[in-house]
Amino acid sequence: MPEINLPDVLAEVAAAFERYETALVTNDVAVLDELFWNSPHTLRYGVGENLYGYEAIAAFRAARPSHGLQRELVNTTITTYGRDFATANTEFRRGEVHGRQSQTWARMPEGWRVVAAHVSLMPVKG
Amino acid sequence: MPEINLPDVLAEVAAAFERYETALVTNDVAVLDELFWNSPHTLRYGVGENLYGYEAIAAFRAARPSHGLQRELVNTTITTYGRDFATANTEFRRGEVHGRQSQTWARMPEGWRVVAAHVSLMPVKG
Repeated sequence: MPEINLPDVLAEVAAAFERYETALVTNDVAVLDELFWNSPHTLRYGVGENLYGYEAIAAFRAARPSHGLQRELVNTTITTYGRDFATANTEFRRGEVHGRQSQTWARMPEGWRVVAAHVSLMPVKG
Repeated sequence: MPEINLPDVLAEVAAAFERYETALVTNDVAVLDELFWNSPHTLRYGVGENLYGYEAIAAFRAARPSHGLQRELVNTTITTYGRDFATANTEFRRGEVHGRQSQTWARMPEGWRVVAAHVSLMPVKG
């Protein structure tokens, strides 16, 4: 069984997660690109698009609106498995919008990187 | 760098993924429960609910409608990292509905288990 939430590993992933979040809300595209694994295997399901491979994700970032990005995180849950693998899940709120963001992180030679991500909004209740 | 998509590991995870899919469309709740990690750390963001911990996920399964579950998978992408971790992502279609399912799998002493999952629907285009 992988050791769950080794404190030093958890601290590393939490720092990477926070760095990503700051980059997201400030639209720091260079850091967003840096923190996704540069691989054709990387994928990101966004709110309205399914992006396959690092290049598609980077192209989406470059074309993304750069305003109205601030959000509040709720129930953020980071779990590490051994020393090299982690999941980071959070709910977020932006005004009336309530969403969820899931990331799988892996330790690569260049540092911790998101290898897969999924972002979606909760259905609006009628 | 973890070795990506070692053939034997990929075959193991693909088999677990297919077992999960069959259980999902036949509402085999025992297998669905078996394949999620029995841990309070496990989480599942569903189409309309955010479930924290194995018990909450199992309770949701037990109360879930058991009909209309058949679906077609599209662009299924399984990637393994080393021998003990994997991501499995797929789009699915069920009639007019188009969704995405993301799973992170880890090898536990009891076998491959989903440690985090996220399911969402694509927005309906107006």
